[in-house]
Amino acid sequence: MDLELLSELATVNDSKVVLVVLDGVGGLAGPEGRTSLEAARTPNLDDLARRGVCGFHDPVAPGITPGSGPAHIGLFGYDPLRYMIGRGVLDTAGTPFEFAPGDLASRLNFATLAKDGTIADRRAGRIPDEEGKRIVEKLSAKIKKIDSVELLLQHVKEYRAAAIFRGEKLDGRLSDSDPQRTGKKPLEVAPVEDEPGPEAVRAAKLANEFIARAKGVLSDEEKANFLMMRGFDVYEPLPDFCELYKWRALAIATYPMYKGVAKLAGMRVIEQGQATLEEETDLLEANWNAADFVFFHVKKTDSKGEDGDLPGKIEVLEHFDELLPHITDLKPDVLCITGDHSTPCLMKSHSFHPVPLCIVSACARVDACESFGETAFLQGGLGRVHSTDVMPLLLAHARRLKKYGA
Amino acid sequence: MDLELLSELATVNDSKVVLVVLDGVGGLAGPEGRTSLEAARTPNLDDLARRGVCGFHDPVAPGITPGSGPAHIGLFGYDPLRYMIGRGVLDTAGTPFEFAPGDLASRLNFATLAKDGTIADRRAGRIPDEEGKRIVEKLSAKIKKIDSVELLLQHVKEYRAAAIFRGEKLDGRLSDSDPQRTGKKPLEVAPVEDEPGPEAVRAAKLANEFIARAKGVLSDEEKANFLMMRGFDVYEPLPDFCELYKWRALAIATYPMYKGVAKLAGMRVIEQGQATLEEETDLLEANWNAADFVFFHVKKTDSKGEDGDLPGKIEVLEHFDELLPHITDLKPDVLCITGDHSTPCLMKSHSFHPVPLCIVSACARVDACESFGETAFLQGGLGRVHSTDVMPLLLAHARRLKKYGA
Repeated sequence: MDLELLSELATVNDSKVVLVVLDGVGGLAGPEGRTSLEAARTPNLDDLARRGVCGFHDPVAPGITPGSGPAHIGLFGYDPLRYMIGRGVLDTAGTPFEFAPGDLASRLNFATLAKDGTIADRRAGRIPDEEGKRIVEKLSAKIKKIDSVELLLQHVKEYRAAAIFRGEKLDGRLSDSDPQRTGKKPLEVAPVEDEPGPEAVRAAKLANEFIARAKGVLSDEEKANFLMMRGFDVYEPLPDFCELYKWRALAIATYPMYKGVAKLAGMRVIEQGQATLEEETDLLEANWNAADFVFFHVKKTDSKGEDGDLPGKIEVLEHFDELLPHITDLKPDVLCITGDHSTPCLMKSHSFHPVPLCIVSACARVDACESFGETAFLQGGLGRVHSTDVMPLLLAHARRLKKYGA
Repeated sequence: MDLELLSELATVNDSKVVLVVLDGVGGLAGPEGRTSLEAARTPNLDDLARRGVCGFHDPVAPGITPGSGPAHIGLFGYDPLRYMIGRGVLDTAGTPFEFAPGDLASRLNFATLAKDGTIADRRAGRIPDEEGKRIVEKLSAKIKKIDSVELLLQHVKEYRAAAIFRGEKLDGRLSDSDPQRTGKKPLEVAPVEDEPGPEAVRAAKLANEFIARAKGVLSDEEKANFLMMRGFDVYEPLPDFCELYKWRALAIATYPMYKGVAKLAGMRVIEQGQATLEEETDLLEANWNAADFVFFHVKKTDSKGEDGDLPGKIEVLEHFDELLPHITDLKPDVLCITGDHSTPCLMKSHSFHPVPLCIVSACARVDACESFGETAFLQGGLGRVHSTDVMPLLLAHARRLKKYGA
């Protein structure tokens, strides 16, 4: 669906829409022949499945495993193949840092360099937040520009930070300096294209120069005596989610990356106070009147999937199910429960499998699904849609889309 | 899915993937209310349906009946609407002939011309291979060029051959000289476009000139005293299947056209020794260590469908099912059983119906399908995908695709 057209059709009403993203919610059958969703006791989710219309969405395309960025971007209605967001921008967006269009962002890892010039520790002994912040400040004080290009540094978490080059047109298609293994020497940053343009060559030069100067500044540090750059990307703003769909959008998420992707879309993001699921639902209740659309992100379904922890994933789902009445009691006009991608415990990673999707609304065409799960949803009324269809479907179920054509 | 992006995501591992194409496998219910797949006793296929994920693919688009070329091209991941392969190229590709980019190819049918200038036999009495070869050699010896353009001739089978013009930029959008009926005069080859460019005008002139000169050379022949041209097409190479997906691909097929389409994609094709299904499975076993991907083509399901022979099609399916353990015993990491298109006995032709598709792999999201057939697969977890999704899905199930985006 063309975003411009969708936006033309979007209209304003009093409806409230909640999009719950259970990160990595889809799975594969475990040893007992059931996925985590199927094995979990989830009476409230099952009730939604009965009351709503169910199915699946493909985050990018059949067979394609998405990263968290493209997976969320798609759910928000942006074509994930057109709007690429690199890790440097994604991670930084989750911090209070404010991007300007054209910024070249890169993730920084503080690291420990051995005397022989190889990487002894890729995470500088996992230095705590305070240490990380101190080192970022130290670097910021010493290095403000590389050549004539402004350098901005932002601490992210522990040994992780971000570097942003601003003020010159640069190309972010650059290789990482992180060799990915200890005992190896750091790599030169270089353009990845076979025939790079001058903006990529220049960007690589700036990055390598920064690494060299940072090495000098950090030489007296015991652990974080070096840094590595990776995930280069140039920030280009997304079409504004609130303007596109003509509503006030709010994001409630615990992890920086998901706050980041919501912020990139132009949603209002609650920065603090949502460390637990209980706090997230409290915040939803507290902010209910101030938003028309809420993106509600649940992280731990994915974390347990990545750990291959089936009982753990089941527990997270059951916990969410217990808290679900806090959401349903608010009586949203449209409640959508889905994931951004599947993370089967069996694979311990994101996967390509279609993601369960359930939409509850007064105008949902209710199907025969009786329980919330992958096998049940194969009988669902939504069939299998693309992730970018989810937002038009939510708007439609909220009666927020005008008729197309006469 | 963009092929370039797919190729960027493709990565190498030790997995083995087998794609079995039961040509024309999909059908319509016969007098007893069951399709050939449903009526056939196929315990091994049913077992795959239970262990795998099932559904359908659309070869081109809903409602569109594909030829064998586009149908296979789609399964190999190439957009069949973008990569058109005409019959002249397709047929010739199944022979040892080696194309150069830009070659203009046409099928040749040797025919018998009556004294009144009409076609008495469109197949020259179905002359045998040796006769066909002799006549091709005779023509080759006498006609090496038309104007300054090189002419290459290749015998295909019996009364069929191919003519290839090389060395000048030509347009293959030309009409056939074959009037399709006996008792008619042969047609002039002409550009099909309303306002043809000079390359089409020139190509038509070369073709008509060749036909006239061939008539002279063949005038002393009793049966094959004439030839007709049809299926003009210019050869443009496909992106290389092995390079795209980063594996060693092998094709096992009995019929030239399927060998041809595999060869056009850049697969290694076994040229001889696979006349029967048993020989095909023997070859699969013998070549198992030398390939990561095997395209395994079964022709007779389609032939029986074209004949409208339901018991015959059932027999072919049961025969394949008996031999299936030869494939499963090799323990491919991914085994896909599908067709290139449907060929219902009821229609005696290729059809537009979606094609049954089953993927067996350790990371398939197993659905509730208990048997291998059109009605059962409607409950399948794959739903209905496009033929070009099949290859990404096979790569994904082989864990040969990296994550897209951060």
